[in-house]
Amino acid sequence: MSLRRVLGLGLGLGRALGRRSYCSKSPLPPDFVEALRAVVGTPNVSTAMAVREQHGHDESMHVCAPPDAVVWPHAVGQVQELAALCYRYRVPMVPFGTGTGLEGGVNAVQGGVCFDLSHMDTIMELSLEDFSVSVEPGVTRKALNSYLRGTGLWFPVDPGADASLCGMAATGASGTNAVRYGTMRPNVLNLRVVLPDGRLLHTAGAGRQPRKRAAGYDLTSLFVGSEGTLGFLTLATLRLHPLPEATAAATTAFPTVQAAVDCTVQVLQAAVPVARIEFLDEVMADACGRFSNMELPVAPTLLLELHGSRHSLAEQQQQTEDIVRLNGGSSLAWAEELEERERLWAMRHRAWYSALALRPGCQGYSTDVCVPISRLPDVVVETKRDLQDSGLTGPMVGHVGDGNFHCILVFNTQDKDEAERVHAFTERLGRRALAAGGTCTGEHGVGLGKRALLLEELGQEGLDTLRSIKAALDPCNLMNPGKVL
Amino acid sequence: MSLRRVLGLGLGLGRALGRRSYCSKSPLPPDFVEALRAVVGTPNVSTAMAVREQHGHDESMHVCAPPDAVVWPHAVGQVQELAALCYRYRVPMVPFGTGTGLEGGVNAVQGGVCFDLSHMDTIMELSLEDFSVSVEPGVTRKALNSYLRGTGLWFPVDPGADASLCGMAATGASGTNAVRYGTMRPNVLNLRVVLPDGRLLHTAGAGRQPRKRAAGYDLTSLFVGSEGTLGFLTLATLRLHPLPEATAAATTAFPTVQAAVDCTVQVLQAAVPVARIEFLDEVMADACGRFSNMELPVAPTLLLELHGSRHSLAEQQQQTEDIVRLNGGSSLAWAEELEERERLWAMRHRAWYSALALRPGCQGYSTDVCVPISRLPDVVVETKRDLQDSGLTGPMVGHVGDGNFHCILVFNTQDKDEAERVHAFTERLGRRALAAGGTCTGEHGVGLGKRALLLEELGQEGLDTLRSIKAALDPCNLMNPGKVL
Repeated sequence: MSLRRVLGLGLGLGRALGRRSYCSKSPLPPDFVEALRAVVGTPNVSTAMAVREQHGHDESMHVCAPPDAVVWPHAVGQVQELAALCYRYRVPMVPFGTGTGLEGGVNAVQGGVCFDLSHMDTIMELSLEDFSVSVEPGVTRKALNSYLRGTGLWFPVDPGADASLCGMAATGASGTNAVRYGTMRPNVLNLRVVLPDGRLLHTAGAGRQPRKRAAGYDLTSLFVGSEGTLGFLTLATLRLHPLPEATAAATTAFPTVQAAVDCTVQVLQAAVPVARIEFLDEVMADACGRFSNMELPVAPTLLLELHGSRHSLAEQQQQTEDIVRLNGGSSLAWAEELEERERLWAMRHRAWYSALALRPGCQGYSTDVCVPISRLPDVVVETKRDLQDSGLTGPMVGHVGDGNFHCILVFNTQDKDEAERVHAFTERLGRRALAAGGTCTGEHGVGLGKRALLLEELGQEGLDTLRSIKAALDPCNLMNPGKVL
Repeated sequence: MSLRRVLGLGLGLGRALGRRSYCSKSPLPPDFVEALRAVVGTPNVSTAMAVREQHGHDESMHVCAPPDAVVWPHAVGQVQELAALCYRYRVPMVPFGTGTGLEGGVNAVQGGVCFDLSHMDTIMELSLEDFSVSVEPGVTRKALNSYLRGTGLWFPVDPGADASLCGMAATGASGTNAVRYGTMRPNVLNLRVVLPDGRLLHTAGAGRQPRKRAAGYDLTSLFVGSEGTLGFLTLATLRLHPLPEATAAATTAFPTVQAAVDCTVQVLQAAVPVARIEFLDEVMADACGRFSNMELPVAPTLLLELHGSRHSLAEQQQQTEDIVRLNGGSSLAWAEELEERERLWAMRHRAWYSALALRPGCQGYSTDVCVPISRLPDVVVETKRDLQDSGLTGPMVGHVGDGNFHCILVFNTQDKDEAERVHAFTERLGRRALAAGGTCTGEHGVGLGKRALLLEELGQEGLDTLRSIKAALDPCNLMNPGKVL
């Protein structure tokens, strides 16, 4: 079971509806595939339909769009040569990490060559003094944290899936720990990028990793969240964090959504350095409790985690308890031992399956919006009303400290009417977030599905500016074409 | 006395040498100035030489380059109209905030119109729940923090100068608190930008302020640190932080630079959430102690500040004391009351004048580099040797938690040979930082003086990428031309 699903970010509408495949418009030039083979060797190029289909989708609702060929480079020089080749032949290029995206980012909607970067999986340049490490695109976040075991450091960004770290950089991922440790953006110090024509760019200069810079436009932040549309991320230098000495987690139930959000705001205002603060609506709390055999009241619920020294942890717990009580929350039973905490988070991580169990035989689809936290209660309440009016099942989970939440829609994919209602609901949810001063995506990215919403979010000037940057860096529109813009 | 100077970021080489003025190559078209007046009214346009000269320099070493005219818009619509006018006439535009920059960012090296934005000084949209506020470009960081008094929130980024917050965003400023609260970049949520042709862009969409977004390229981070070369920042939505309940500060002296840096690294590794950790070399410690009549050993010194609840502060103090002792630091006498702490920081803030007092009658010039912290001891020791070999006086201060430090060069500007040695030394210092995997500027920006170093830092591909972005967003090269690139 993948953590991604558990976080409610699993299989989507398209696959559920029986994935169909698009075909690329024109076949690859005859000598082109031979040229690819000359670069990486015959076993590292495939045009087999099964392989192409495997690389033509992520875990989202979008219909499979297989590339015309898949290549497995083993070194950055090969990525450069392959890119130069594609550039020369004007063949689209699609970077592929673990395929765990949620907005169709890897679907090769204009065909072309998929670069599967999973064989480049070296971890290098670990510096404990500088709190930094560099990872190739095949390195996943769990692999990195295993590697770091015993060093006292870790990489905290956790989107649920065991995604590749370069893929997480490409989509601007975040997750449960972002409220304390930030999203990918502030945790990437440098990126080695292969540009569409094969040139090599180091966003902060080759081999550099100062903790801060004021030298020119911030190319690192530009490539973080670019969703493969500007170049290949072939090495990411990441900022590491000290492991907390002690950790405690607990759940607490509230009379209303407003009370749960008020509690969150007050915890943040009190400068309690909360590491995770997750919201479950009463439907999700009920589903999770039942699925994991835990006693969880059917009520808006917060699941909190605190990190600190033993001493400061006790104080954080006390402050949190006081604020929870003030807002009518139920008393907190702290899980401090690893096993207890794991049990609690396993429950949260099974949210996806807990939701699916509400309607056996149905499929799930996860939305993603983010609003200013002051607007969260209204948006959640309106969304619940919308679900009811639409006759849909959609328990909610959210990274409430950031105002980011997901609805896990559980529906019968054979029922076309219901599938259409799901689609219409997700569009309305995106627009509701925009109307509340939020964004149509807090962490999943734009990919294929949110391009129309992106225009509404940024306005014409905003989109024109994105387009001019895209045109400047990828003038032939070869990098992951059809995404974001 | 400005805080900027105190931080060692004061008057520089050019002014010291007797500022000369450049002239714009071609005079403004005759009907153009009339058109400017039609937009903002006659009193808000000036072509008087005194006014132009006043706007032709910041506090750096660079020779004054006055604009051909200065305008004072009072509303964003006027900025748009003025920009559209300049665009139509192909006249360069230079944004001007408080003029407290340190790399010649406002010097109108190609003439044109200086937009003095100080009359747009509204603070709006304060949300205590969302920890956010929006400020026009005339609002300084001190004005904002005065406005926030009593709310329990503050804006911690502190470069020393009472700079405008939009100007701080434009240069990607940071300062003493960055080790805990980050630089400007993660603290800007949205920017309202007037593009070179007068169009209005909201980098995160109009009226939006989610804490995180994954919707398209990160335009906010692109404009932070763009040094006025891509557009006018006319409103910044900022992220606020809760005020700490308790604060304590102390100094401690070490036997070597290495010991002071080791101590810093261990404090960070122990996850002590240190708010400020400032380094003074023995020359600076001596100068500061004497200038402020405080007993400070002539030794590499750290000046620390801790923020927390009363309870957690005591623990942070204990942890810090243990680590200091382990590294041979002198025992810490904590200043906890406001008055005591202010006395300590006043000493640090007088570093600029303390340095100048080493050679009465001489002038000062502050450098700025940032290196990975593991390389800091070597770089500091090499730099001290270089100072000695060059026969220069240059006490050092640094934001050591970020690996960022400044040399305050105190020299006789009438002595051409010494001025040349200062120039050669600063070039070598920049290259030394680059050789150590660092950056030529941690917080002052590139401006006029570090363009050659920027090429060395980013390489040709990096600079070409910056240039292509500049060309895409400012195709006629009208926004602050001659800077950064």
